[in-house]
Amino acid sequence: MKKLINDPEDVVSEAVAGMAVAHADLIRVETDPIFIVRADAPVAGKVGIVSGGGSGHEPMHGGLVGPGMLDAAVPGPVFTSPTPDPIVAATKAVDAGRGVLHIVKNYTGDVLNFETAADLAAAEDIEVRSVVVDDDVAVKDSLYTAGRRGVAGTVLVEKIAGAAADRGDDLDAVAAIATRVNAQVRSMGVALTACTVPHAGEPSFDLPDDEIEIGIGIHGEPGRARIPIEPADRIVDRLLEPILEDLPFESGDDVLLFVNGMGGTPLIELYIVYRRAAEVLAERGINVTRHLVGDYTTSLEMQGASITVLKLDDELTELWDAPVETAALRWGR
Amino acid sequence: MKKLINDPEDVVSEAVAGMAVAHADLIRVETDPIFIVRADAPVAGKVGIVSGGGSGHEPMHGGLVGPGMLDAAVPGPVFTSPTPDPIVAATKAVDAGRGVLHIVKNYTGDVLNFETAADLAAAEDIEVRSVVVDDDVAVKDSLYTAGRRGVAGTVLVEKIAGAAADRGDDLDAVAAIATRVNAQVRSMGVALTACTVPHAGEPSFDLPDDEIEIGIGIHGEPGRARIPIEPADRIVDRLLEPILEDLPFESGDDVLLFVNGMGGTPLIELYIVYRRAAEVLAERGINVTRHLVGDYTTSLEMQGASITVLKLDDELTELWDAPVETAALRWGR
Repeated sequence: MKKLINDPEDVVSEAVAGMAVAHADLIRVETDPIFIVRADAPVAGKVGIVSGGGSGHEPMHGGLVGPGMLDAAVPGPVFTSPTPDPIVAATKAVDAGRGVLHIVKNYTGDVLNFETAADLAAAEDIEVRSVVVDDDVAVKDSLYTAGRRGVAGTVLVEKIAGAAADRGDDLDAVAAIATRVNAQVRSMGVALTACTVPHAGEPSFDLPDDEIEIGIGIHGEPGRARIPIEPADRIVDRLLEPILEDLPFESGDDVLLFVNGMGGTPLIELYIVYRRAAEVLAERGINVTRHLVGDYTTSLEMQGASITVLKLDDELTELWDAPVETAALRWGR
Repeated sequence: MKKLINDPEDVVSEAVAGMAVAHADLIRVETDPIFIVRADAPVAGKVGIVSGGGSGHEPMHGGLVGPGMLDAAVPGPVFTSPTPDPIVAATKAVDAGRGVLHIVKNYTGDVLNFETAADLAAAEDIEVRSVVVDDDVAVKDSLYTAGRRGVAGTVLVEKIAGAAADRGDDLDAVAAIATRVNAQVRSMGVALTACTVPHAGEPSFDLPDDEIEIGIGIHGEPGRARIPIEPADRIVDRLLEPILEDLPFESGDDVLLFVNGMGGTPLIELYIVYRRAAEVLAERGINVTRHLVGDYTTSLEMQGASITVLKLDDELTELWDAPVETAALRWGR
């Protein structure tokens, strides 16, 4: 295992320490327990938004904390859910009296620990709603998950819910927007290589030199099929077909097309994927009116990509376009 | 070789086609010859700025085209200089009568081809100045290069020169600012793994499972030393020491600290590197007043990172902070 790390036990604490010093204008980092919070939290008059989950998917979620998006992010150990304790602490830190939304990716550990944290926060008179994101169409029920997994669509839920909170929506309204985005977003990914969790020291799974995994999970969970490597256009078709059929997305729909890198794939390849995906959508009469291309929901150094399609309407488009200022996503301020 | 590509010969043309459709609000792509240009070029009353070089370093340079930064970028084949022809075409496309600055990384092929292009443009009455960037302190003279190589510091030159052009500086003044940034910026990188050029199909060099290359070039050119893998903090110290001694950077200096990913390294590791680099600078009384963390000057899927330090003054800080709107870097608009 070759990584730019010190002791594998210190990976998360040192990385968030690096974030704290790099982005002191946007965030501060609490260390006991560990969470990342907006420098100006709690923000008066605003619903708070907290997300979190295992580390190793950066910039999600810590790089998405800031005006217009998350108020706090709770990083667990690599690929391991955070315990309820830091989730409660983050929830308290962002509550300004209008309640707090938890955005939770659908993994059994995350769901349980966020539920426990919500109960504990409620016991301290903080109103909490939770929205569970399950955008991955690859498989139903998986390693770590009952039901569908939450993957890169989570970034879109967080951006749009963040904008809703920013414009002053109340807790029910922010939760309703997040629920609506989750209902209209679908994703699927492919892995070309595995990744290595630092404290494990060995790749999470084996993938032969000439094979890829279609429908991979963001922790390397099995997908739909392991097949020989193919040209990118064919792989994109394999990912898009189940995404488009699932909602379904139809001719005349306006969508946001998001091509996400898994961490180890060059940007040049993501644009090759984007090109084909946009071509397929155009052929079907689906209008790509917004886009996102880059590494936002990663799996450490895994090579691969995922495609996410979100059906837009005027309100979601306006919320997507609203100003955001985070380490990883910023525009309009 | 497993990559998300179709025919290796089509990698650059398909990737720029993907950029064109994703970022139609910012750029357009010319295909014969290939270059990427601001959608609104030429911009009346403004000095034009063109950069370019071999592909495989994305988002540099195509992802840095837009208001406040580059007017055009000329991508050669992967790790291969563009010919003079597209450089001339890009130069013409961005000339608004106030002349054009070429920002060129110091590689023999790039320097020669940009020189030829400048001569051809001059023959058509376009005034061109060139600034050659050579920020890499690792080695003097290298594979492909006489003198020092141009690496990630190029991104800082492009941002700051772009801001100078944006505020209305004339060609001599923009060239002087770019020259000043180059004179005050130093970089050095480390590779943990090699990368594979698509049309070659094999890794560019061999790096044993337990060794790293200190002072690597962005095309995998040899650096200063090949050593056994070490903790990240020790590696950071090895990169920073020659950077700080070279200018030298001294107690009381204000600097921009830039930790750049080579393409295959997780963001979480870049923050571990940033943390240590900031710590070392603080110990030396050097003030980090601006920062950049992420993949901006990559080497395909190479795992590794580089550190860049730029000495700031009030003017350079103001130009760094000026609004920019490109695919890869945006703030303030």
